[in-house]
Amino acid sequence: MALIVQKFGGTSVGNTERIKNVAARVARYRARGDSLVVVVSAMSGVTDGLIKLAKEIMPLPSEREMDMLLATGEQTTIALTAMALQAIGVPAASLTGAQAGIVTDGVHTKAKIKNITPKQVHALLETGSVVIVAGFQGQTPEGQITTLGRGGSDLTAIALAAALKAGLCQIYTDVDGVYTADPRLVLTARKLDEIAYDEMLELAGAGAKVMQLRSVEFAKKFGVVFEVRSSMNDNPGTIVKEETKSMEDVVIRGVSIDKNQAKVTVVGVPDRPGVAARIFQALADAAINIDMIVQNVSHGEGAPVTDLSFTLDKPDLLKARKVIDALKGEIGYRDATTNEAIAKLSMVGVGMRSHSGAAAKMFAVLANEGVNIDMISTSEIKVSVVIDLAKGDHALRAVHGAFLG
Amino acid sequence: MALIVQKFGGTSVGNTERIKNVAARVARYRARGDSLVVVVSAMSGVTDGLIKLAKEIMPLPSEREMDMLLATGEQTTIALTAMALQAIGVPAASLTGAQAGIVTDGVHTKAKIKNITPKQVHALLETGSVVIVAGFQGQTPEGQITTLGRGGSDLTAIALAAALKAGLCQIYTDVDGVYTADPRLVLTARKLDEIAYDEMLELAGAGAKVMQLRSVEFAKKFGVVFEVRSSMNDNPGTIVKEETKSMEDVVIRGVSIDKNQAKVTVVGVPDRPGVAARIFQALADAAINIDMIVQNVSHGEGAPVTDLSFTLDKPDLLKARKVIDALKGEIGYRDATTNEAIAKLSMVGVGMRSHSGAAAKMFAVLANEGVNIDMISTSEIKVSVVIDLAKGDHALRAVHGAFLG
Repeated sequence: MALIVQKFGGTSVGNTERIKNVAARVARYRARGDSLVVVVSAMSGVTDGLIKLAKEIMPLPSEREMDMLLATGEQTTIALTAMALQAIGVPAASLTGAQAGIVTDGVHTKAKIKNITPKQVHALLETGSVVIVAGFQGQTPEGQITTLGRGGSDLTAIALAAALKAGLCQIYTDVDGVYTADPRLVLTARKLDEIAYDEMLELAGAGAKVMQLRSVEFAKKFGVVFEVRSSMNDNPGTIVKEETKSMEDVVIRGVSIDKNQAKVTVVGVPDRPGVAARIFQALADAAINIDMIVQNVSHGEGAPVTDLSFTLDKPDLLKARKVIDALKGEIGYRDATTNEAIAKLSMVGVGMRSHSGAAAKMFAVLANEGVNIDMISTSEIKVSVVIDLAKGDHALRAVHGAFLG
Repeated sequence: MALIVQKFGGTSVGNTERIKNVAARVARYRARGDSLVVVVSAMSGVTDGLIKLAKEIMPLPSEREMDMLLATGEQTTIALTAMALQAIGVPAASLTGAQAGIVTDGVHTKAKIKNITPKQVHALLETGSVVIVAGFQGQTPEGQITTLGRGGSDLTAIALAAALKAGLCQIYTDVDGVYTADPRLVLTARKLDEIAYDEMLELAGAGAKVMQLRSVEFAKKFGVVFEVRSSMNDNPGTIVKEETKSMEDVVIRGVSIDKNQAKVTVVGVPDRPGVAARIFQALADAAINIDMIVQNVSHGEGAPVTDLSFTLDKPDLLKARKVIDALKGEIGYRDATTNEAIAKLSMVGVGMRSHSGAAAKMFAVLANEGVNIDMISTSEIKVSVVIDLAKGDHALRAVHGAFLG
């Protein structure tokens, strides 16, 4: 008899038939004697429909009212899910985020969870009910309805699991778990039985789309062990947990490719203190997130100059170009170029800490395949390279083959 | 500068264009310097759509979860209405029933308002915002979401007007106000400038569909003066208020016809104490609402017997027939007949208290028109007769013509 938190995303509750499937799954766990808290998202399409309504009213609706509007999406699902459980004889009751005691700050549309006081959840669990909680939403201490932004329902589940000291937190999704690589790109990709929080974080940051960074960070911070698994079958998924000694035996846990990046190179930048800071402060002021940064060694005679390259999300490229152009007079660089035809290839593994030579092997594999490396960036457990977009998938398969079979 | 509570029903907020129209109207009042609290219903069709979803899950969903589900309807409208006001430069903020401090009992799907503590409403009004409140919903002291049942949004508006000591409460609807008769049936029907609570109550009970009884009863109890008016134009509506001396100058305020009733006659009922009680208790136990009851004088020789007739809503007729049939052995009546081809014609006016002869004049008008009267029931300010359904509209026009021109 354990307390399990299960989270089902928008696709898993996309219509009443699927909601009945979710109820059937929950009922099977309950029949084993487990207590269950079920977190659900809005039915797929519902949130988009609400956003469309709001846009009919005004192009940029107030964030407070957007939260009020969007919170109805999950509220609809929790009621229907509770009904679907009752329909098969399982006592169930639904709670909004506010009712479940999810207290957030007041930053509407991307609120942060401050604390959870799940009094009503405990009370309902004690009556033997399955408790259905609306994901993605909470309320401020003053009683304003807030939403948590992208990936918010995962966060609700993990935060509730922490607050309730749940034995297990299951994140149901439309994939079987975390893979060594995207199986649509790499046929030999394997599902992982387990992965360390840090590896999951690096993979998410490297373009793997299973979960948002913030939910994994929250789980790591509070030591919530969770399982990513499919709502379409009964296969065990991938357990995400604190790094263990045995995990280091595997050098590389996974590889991923991010094709949504673009590169900016500023050529002939005067090599004096404060110039890089000026450039990246200006980009930050424009709310542009920078990923990799590489600065070449100074070259030239007379006043030393350097080349500076960085990558960012493609949609931000035009904005970044404007920022850089505006700085030309002030900084006095020679030229700025941009390149959208790039891919960022990353490999991740805590085993890199204790096994040297992984990066060298990756570079050799790419050289063998005739793939030129444009930029390199490394962390303790990750190596990322920027390469030609056209060679991205081929390079991904080659690196996966060399390290992961 | 007054505080005005305005309520807009589902048709008035049926799509985003209409919501913008509502916002424009609210803005005009605000430009005069008034403070505004706006109560809105779910967009027309939304509630039915939610009920359909629930029925896909199970035929008879739990009432707690139905409330959780249906409450999303008004929550959607309040957010969109607040946005529509902001879009035209009017500060506005929305509140759910719970946030507006509407505390109810725990009878899900037809909760009663216990009290209102509109702290957030006051706070928002003080910042100069128009406050948009979700009609039809509240929460129990324990924090469960409830809905108020049919006509619940009117009730929210009137109860808020009472709690906030509003200067005026306007109920916007798709008719211009309260009429001397249904203008679709009586071409010469006139809109009333004012009507007494009691007259409005009797008319509502007699089939006039402008408002539910309970909202009018609430308004009467707390002395809330309200105006019924159209959201489609700027015509003044009908003021509903406490009876004044001058109201008695008018004998008849309005006439109405209810074609949704059926009649049951139990013939040859033994005329002994307790028999009527037994019959109507059995009907009450079956949750059947009885409207008019008429018992003829005893006739026959030997053991005295009587005939008992009553009317009820047509949809309850079959159920009532079963109850009556089941009592035959116990009571020993001779026969029971039913008639669905009836209409109840009523005329209402506080002036009847001080003007005698109104009922006699009504009967004479009907006799002149060859309309036979089947049953009669009177109150201090109302006379109702049951007549042949086929002659209903003609009789309505004749009585309206005689009393109201």
